[in-house]
Amino acid sequence: MFNNSFRLLQKDASGGERAGELVTPHGVVPTPVFCPVGSQATVKTLTAEEVAGIGLKMLLANTYHLYLRPGIPVIEGLGGLHKFMGWAKAILTDSGGYQIFSLAPLCQISDEGVAFRSHVDGSQHFITPELAIQYQEGLGADIIMVLDECPSHDGSFEKVREAMLRTHRWAERCRRAQKRTDQALYAIVQGGLFPELRCQSVEYLAALEFAGYAIGGVSLGEPKEVTMAVVGETAALLPRDKPRYLMGVGSPDDIVNAIALGIDVFDSALPTRVARNGALFTWQGRRNITNSTYKKMAEPVDPGCGCYTCRNYSVAYLHHLFTCRELLAYRLATIHNLAFMNDLVTKARNAIVAGSFASFRRDFLASYQPTDEQTRLSQKQKWLQSRSLSSQLTED
Amino acid sequence: MFNNSFRLLQKDASGGERAGELVTPHGVVPTPVFCPVGSQATVKTLTAEEVAGIGLKMLLANTYHLYLRPGIPVIEGLGGLHKFMGWAKAILTDSGGYQIFSLAPLCQISDEGVAFRSHVDGSQHFITPELAIQYQEGLGADIIMVLDECPSHDGSFEKVREAMLRTHRWAERCRRAQKRTDQALYAIVQGGLFPELRCQSVEYLAALEFAGYAIGGVSLGEPKEVTMAVVGETAALLPRDKPRYLMGVGSPDDIVNAIALGIDVFDSALPTRVARNGALFTWQGRRNITNSTYKKMAEPVDPGCGCYTCRNYSVAYLHHLFTCRELLAYRLATIHNLAFMNDLVTKARNAIVAGSFASFRRDFLASYQPTDEQTRLSQKQKWLQSRSLSSQLTED
Repeated sequence: MFNNSFRLLQKDASGGERAGELVTPHGVVPTPVFCPVGSQATVKTLTAEEVAGIGLKMLLANTYHLYLRPGIPVIEGLGGLHKFMGWAKAILTDSGGYQIFSLAPLCQISDEGVAFRSHVDGSQHFITPELAIQYQEGLGADIIMVLDECPSHDGSFEKVREAMLRTHRWAERCRRAQKRTDQALYAIVQGGLFPELRCQSVEYLAALEFAGYAIGGVSLGEPKEVTMAVVGETAALLPRDKPRYLMGVGSPDDIVNAIALGIDVFDSALPTRVARNGALFTWQGRRNITNSTYKKMAEPVDPGCGCYTCRNYSVAYLHHLFTCRELLAYRLATIHNLAFMNDLVTKARNAIVAGSFASFRRDFLASYQPTDEQTRLSQKQKWLQSRSLSSQLTED
Repeated sequence: MFNNSFRLLQKDASGGERAGELVTPHGVVPTPVFCPVGSQATVKTLTAEEVAGIGLKMLLANTYHLYLRPGIPVIEGLGGLHKFMGWAKAILTDSGGYQIFSLAPLCQISDEGVAFRSHVDGSQHFITPELAIQYQEGLGADIIMVLDECPSHDGSFEKVREAMLRTHRWAERCRRAQKRTDQALYAIVQGGLFPELRCQSVEYLAALEFAGYAIGGVSLGEPKEVTMAVVGETAALLPRDKPRYLMGVGSPDDIVNAIALGIDVFDSALPTRVARNGALFTWQGRRNITNSTYKKMAEPVDPGCGCYTCRNYSVAYLHHLFTCRELLAYRLATIHNLAFMNDLVTKARNAIVAGSFASFRRDFLASYQPTDEQTRLSQKQKWLQSRSLSSQLTED
């Protein structure tokens, strides 16, 4: 596709990991890339300028949210989403499907499309594959997604197969509906936890030659090992020369593991959401800044981090802002976590280019603790309480 | 006082208005000056860098809030308030008295000091004039305030006189308690709405030669005309060569009127508080950004405003962020209102220097509407509803 392509840098990686570049009308995006989520035309708490200042090159916006508020015609009338939110770099929009299935009450699906009620005001709406493309063309993102059906993660083979087949029919309709030539349209592979369905889905969609391929429906509640096995098997089947996008993932450790499986593009609200809850990422793991041990700490969250928050503020100041629920707290924490995510994928990419990704991954996973001491303690406490054994807590 | 003084620029203004400079250890502050309120070591939603970027030269922090959280020793141990919050310009701290009387439950006053409970956790505390100075020396502000007693605004002559006399005794104790020589200590004139008490209070405190004089207890519910009459009479009695600080004022029109009465220093949470409620200042008055008429407006809030918000975002984007309750909304609105306040006092000062303040004030008050159309409408609606005549609303 003109002016919107993917270049794979190295041809012969020892593992599955890849380094590449997405060339978009709004700049080159090195991959692997992590996209923060700006559901409602803002990465929560941040200006677009701050997101760019962190070094991030692409963000995700939600068509569902923007369709409801302020409405696609409003954004289109104001010159598109980039201009509306003041972001000059790349944007990826989802089709709205995932949000409809997860947020909107009373959604009813048919071959024609999805009827749903707004989670904001209860109003009735109907979206089709054609409308999903029309809305995304109105928003003007660089990468847009087909409308897909996300089956329940505990669905039967037949239910998951039906959702997959409908996703395929919708993918074709989305392709036919596409009018703009400057947007890269990605298909979404479905098939749940059934390897033969994933395989069918990849074969069918690969034949249609989309600009990129997403792996959908994998973060809906399965155990992590199962999810990662499906991602690995699916990624291995996808066309080598097209970007691979793992939707809704995620945590630093999941991302490093998924890069090893050959994923190029990630988006997740997790780093920004946990930031607003006071969980800050470091290379040793998550730190809960509200912990009273941080009350007097003069050091930054991570002395090795070059982000605005770590350059300017002590852990004690962040702890104080969180304790007082000052709005600045959420923002400084968000900046730090996004800088961490950007550092993480940048370092992973450098390691891939240098041929040392396997050791990078091993070292990272050895030092990174997904949950911090306090979270582990509270989980243990819950577990003990559930067995009425809380008196044992101090014995360990 | 060494390195912390006040310079009055013009000697013979036709009216009472004055232009001057506060020389502080953290820079020169041109007066009249508006200080935003950073109660808990942050001007709500903003970094110190953003506050400085707006052009503001001094902010107010609340000793009461910082004493409770994170505690004075924590901030002192981290190098003082300037360093703690990353603000290199001037800081003014109040003594904590006003917050204790307005926020803390069950406060009991005696000549020794004030016993109060924390509004955060109900814990019991006791503050004396000596401790108020000690805490403010620990925080390290450039300008500090005496502990005063704010009498109820509907107090009898005798009650108000007692509070005034106690304020005088406490002012003397504060002076004696002061150890640092780099902080300017301001006294607070009390006396309620009784001109003879205000006069006594000025005479008593002026004889003690404080570095500056605040007019306290005037924004506690009296009608605006009464307040302004008291401010005018009190200001006229104050030493001409010392800065005059009107505590807790306020709105753009009140500030312009008080400048005419000879006030130099203002602080108020109003501009930032109303910003977070979607009320944005313009030279024509307040605009309620949540009004649906702003949904598609491509222009900035004020095309003549040079603030970050107006340079980068449309009214439509702000309206959208407020509609979705995105945290970025509160911040962009706060930046705009503080930029407006800074523009306002800067333009007032320029007019004073040019000898044209009277016409500046007249023009400003003629064009500035303190409440916007929507607020007026809702006030009218309330009035009509209170008379069960709401059906007449559409007839007008």
